[in-house]
Amino acid sequence: MNYILKNLPERTEKPRQTGFTMAMDKGMSPREVEDFIETCGNYVDIVKLGWATSYVTPNLKDKINIYQQAGIPTYFGGTLFEAFVVRNQFDDYRKVLDKFELTFAEVSDGSIELDHDLKCDYISKLSEQVTVLSEVGSKDAEKIIPPYKWISLMQAELDAGAWKVIGEAREGGNVGLFRSSGEVRSGLVEEILTKIPFEKIIWEAPQKAQQVWFIKLLGSNVNLGNIAPNEMIPLETLRLGLRGDTFDHFLNLESLQS
Amino acid sequence: MNYILKNLPERTEKPRQTGFTMAMDKGMSPREVEDFIETCGNYVDIVKLGWATSYVTPNLKDKINIYQQAGIPTYFGGTLFEAFVVRNQFDDYRKVLDKFELTFAEVSDGSIELDHDLKCDYISKLSEQVTVLSEVGSKDAEKIIPPYKWISLMQAELDAGAWKVIGEAREGGNVGLFRSSGEVRSGLVEEILTKIPFEKIIWEAPQKAQQVWFIKLLGSNVNLGNIAPNEMIPLETLRLGLRGDTFDHFLNLESLQS
Amino acid sequence: MNYILKNLPERTEKPRQTGFTMAMDKGMSPREVEDFIETCGNYVDIVKLGWATSYVTPNLKDKINIYQQAGIPTYFGGTLFEAFVVRNQFDDYRKVLDKFELTFAEVSDGSIELDHDLKCDYISKLSEQVTVLSEVGSKDAEKIIPPYKWISLMQAELDAGAWKVIGEAREGGNVGLFRSSGEVRSGLVEEILTKIPFEKIIWEAPQKAQQVWFIKLLGSNVNLGNIAPNEMIPLETLRLGLRGDTFDHFLNLESLQS
Repeated sequence: MNYILKNLPERTEKPRQTGFTMAMDKGMSPREVEDFIETCGNYVDIVKLGWATSYVTPNLKDKINIYQQAGIPTYFGGTLFEAFVVRNQFDDYRKVLDKFELTFAEVSDGSIELDHDLKCDYISKLSEQVTVLSEVGSKDAEKIIPPYKWISLMQAELDAGAWKVIGEAREGGNVGLFRSSGEVRSGLVEEILTKIPFEKIIWEAPQKAQQVWFIKLLGSNVNLGNIAPNEMIPLETLRLGLRGDTFDHFLNLESLQS
Repeated sequence: MNYILKNLPERTEKPRQTGFTMAMDKGMSPREVEDFIETCGNYVDIVKLGWATSYVTPNLKDKINIYQQAGIPTYFGGTLFEAFVVRNQFDDYRKVLDKFELTFAEVSDGSIELDHDLKCDYISKLSEQVTVLSEVGSKDAEKIIPPYKWISLMQAELDAGAWKVIGEAREGGNVGLFRSSGEVRSGLVEEILTKIPFEKIIWEAPQKAQQVWFIKLLGSNVNLGNIAPNEMIPLETLRLGLRGDTFDHFLNLESLQS
Repeated sequence: MNYILKNLPERTEKPRQTGFTMAMDKGMSPREVEDFIETCGNYVDIVKLGWATSYVTPNLKDKINIYQQAGIPTYFGGTLFEAFVVRNQFDDYRKVLDKFELTFAEVSDGSIELDHDLKCDYISKLSEQVTVLSEVGSKDAEKIIPPYKWISLMQAELDAGAWKVIGEAREGGNVGLFRSSGEVRSGLVEEILTKIPFEKIIWEAPQKAQQVWFIKLLGSNVNLGNIAPNEMIPLETLRLGLRGDTFDHFLNLESLQS
């Protein structure tokens, strides 16, 4: 710790089940990954190699190794799973996970139509091989999923073996949990939380306003995902009430000034 | 290749005449350039040192050399050409190109008034010395150029010796080919393509929505420019239908599942 | 200088009282800092370690040293000062400044209520220890401060010992000097300048449109702050009239073409 500030909200430590941050790497070089780990290694719990960027990333194995050496697991974005499935190459996908010695995988249906029982079968099968994150929500701005449906989808996917479920946004933050304006669909989030334990959900929140919204509603130790690497340090200050946006939220003046 | 996915759209290989990507470097350090080349060297065909950033960039020669060693030509943004011309320093400009051993140059009139015959003279003269890219379109949001005029300007510049013509946007993507909302002026693009071969045009498309639009209209191997270095890997996935935005576009389910 | 362009506006040289640029580091790694200094060392006059990012930055001391070795002072964002003050830890804050051998500090009240006399006391006390920048304006979009009030606040803080005053925006550029649209409150700026010397003010201008606005109104050598590191080179071209946005503004065709 660089200096002591009293009465900060408590943060969980690694390995975290809550207060968990998933960062999105959309094509960093190995040296950029080293820099990222040096600066944010204590704050990043898992790294998603965004959508199918792994297909076009040179030295993929080296890059994954750098993360693994630092104790940070990586996984391929759900769009890659979908790209294999839509081509009838699911078995190939399982081999790719082994080839790169990955211990996590994501199952999603953001870009393809997938019968939900079949999706749960994929979760089930993959969870014998790796730890599965499953993503709920569509990348299609036209497809509105009502709250009760989000809940039953999430529950079924957890029951099928998913470790955690991810509430879908897109990298730009325009669909799924968010209105096209970027605003959070707040009623939806509140209703989901009446049924699904909050440690089981990772909320995708690429934009600062979304991060602020979730931290104010769910506290410092909400699980957040799709965070850009250069927004990890700023996010950590938001979680601690050390940035203007959440400064007031965590102040309890009586305790502070006693 | 990190793994095999069936039925991906075909991409051209270097040296490319189509499927060409021009990246915009607006002030990277030499080490950042090295990282960029390591990750994106196979995807970037040419690098523009944005507008007149070369004037204030230290170690310019070293930086150009790093690109050249990797077989990636660089050139100065058109605004620099204009800055020399407006000062009656065209001869100095030619000497600067020689001093830095550049093999490409851009001729534009986005910020200055330039009689079109005179612009074509500059293209002609410079094309004896280097390979010329010429840019059509104004940076001025007020100046609307009708489609027939875009076509005749582009044709005249190709006739004068330009290797390819660039459809102007600005770094932020607000003018020229785009409405102030960032939306592509689609009728304009379609009309231009009835007359000018698509391999002769580089479309400036700094924003993701613009890249998606051109890829959907003109295919994986459309020539695109003004791409931010950290958007090169994401762009490559868009070209291959491996990101949500273009995922559906390249799916031919019959062929995929046979 | 890489090449000679005639009739460019004159820029001040280090150490600068005007034409001064304050960059915002919101969590760069030591290697990124080295890259930044290599490229922008001549243009950046001081670096703010944004808000309380210093709390969560590993190797803070090393990072500050890299800047200091390059002759670039750093200081903690005003939100950190406020975080100490609101916890009754002002004395601790003074010790932290000593511990990190900082020679600059910022006093602000963007996130806390602070009686203005008390704020001036803090400025006074800190100015015995370090050079003080004080920030005027609220981070709260609802709090509109009228022009005469900005002027009296700024004057009082200069009188209390502030070296320069900072006109508050927020990192995203949404409040204080700016309307929620990001537009500059132009009447406000003009009125302030009738009373406070322009070399005494650093205008926070994180967005390009804001930088352009200030440069056009106040010239190449306006003091600007909260500049993202990768926008330093672009800003330098704006100051010199070497980017489309300010190209016309600095052209004096008669002198250029004589």
